[in-house]
Amino acid sequence: MRISELSARSGVALPTIKYYLRENLLHQGEQIAATRAEYDDSHLRRLRLIRALLEVGKLPVASIKRIIAAVDDESLPMHEMLGTAHYALGPTVEPEPGADWEAARAQVDRLITDLGWAVHPDAPTRDELAQALVRMRQLGVPINLGPYVEAAQKLVSEVEMGAVPFDGPRDAAVEAMVLGSVLYGKAFDALRRMAQESESARRLK
Amino acid sequence: MRISELSARSGVALPTIKYYLRENLLHQGEQIAATRAEYDDSHLRRLRLIRALLEVGKLPVASIKRIIAAVDDESLPMHEMLGTAHYALGPTVEPEPGADWEAARAQVDRLITDLGWAVHPDAPTRDELAQALVRMRQLGVPINLGPYVEAAQKLVSEVEMGAVPFDGPRDAAVEAMVLGSVLYGKAFDALRRMAQESESARRLK
Repeated sequence: MRISELSARSGVALPTIKYYLRENLLHQGEQIAATRAEYDDSHLRRLRLIRALLEVGKLPVASIKRIIAAVDDESLPMHEMLGTAHYALGPTVEPEPGADWEAARAQVDRLITDLGWAVHPDAPTRDELAQALVRMRQLGVPINLGPYVEAAQKLVSEVEMGAVPFDGPRDAAVEAMVLGSVLYGKAFDALRRMAQESESARRLK
Repeated sequence: MRISELSARSGVALPTIKYYLRENLLHQGEQIAATRAEYDDSHLRRLRLIRALLEVGKLPVASIKRIIAAVDDESLPMHEMLGTAHYALGPTVEPEPGADWEAARAQVDRLITDLGWAVHPDAPTRDELAQALVRMRQLGVPINLGPYVEAAQKLVSEVEMGAVPFDGPRDAAVEAMVLGSVLYGKAFDALRRMAQESESARRLK
């Protein structure tokens, strides 16, 4: 297809597509004449991925470039490639030097070991959970992670990862992972706060 | 206690306490001499609440003022008072005119009715969930809310609301609700992304 058709079918404006081409976020089409290049489904998939990272993942262009580079580096196994996008989705948490932090981080590491979860030793989610635990301890919130671990395991294995086409094109797998992670996260957040309102009403009636 | 002791025991700097007093976020102490006021546990509780709203809830001062006004208005029932803080914690979602939005919002309303949840007809969480559903449908993410509803119900009734002292001082109830909602939200988010990484590793091994 021509670039105008690519724009129409993807819903991405022509100047934006040209910008992605210049920035190497989108691979060049096949040059079939001096002034004409031909685009295909791989370009449509890539545009879907960029939109997912930008509009749903709310990621900055610098992160998107790193993720696209990982998608394009065929020597990178699928799991590591997904990890590049996955780690970019989380908040950046700075470790807080001190005994509270060390204790919380050790608790997180023990939890992951006990669960037998395959989480990289340097995964940023370890610090993210440690920070939540430090705050809970400092502010006197009772800590009871068991039910949350169980729910996370169940939702991820039964729903979220089931929608990721691990054996499909790399763009499509990253796109599905990002969309599922972010949108199910938002949906769950809303449901959780609805349940809180309802439970508050029940207890106070 | 004197204002200096209030500062030491709360960990809030003296100029900050004076700012809260001027802004009526903190109620005045009892004037026991021309230059001396006496503060008590109610001031400590209030400072804890302000810190929770500011540092954990990340709420702007304008929202905090509204919440404090609701806490101080004893004619407002506990459930409505908690709602003021609770609604402030969520994102602001603008309805998107069109058939997609109407369908998603109707689906949300039906879901709440079917569940028998006591959620206000104008609760912002309804629009929040509707927006997630619209995006999922537009972007082709398969929608399967059942397991999320079940998990939300379980976590909220078994853990989160159990930590809220509904029969204690109003400040303490709001503080516990905000801390529990935000910090358990963060912890769960980290756990969910850990489970995703682990499940990705398992499926790709």
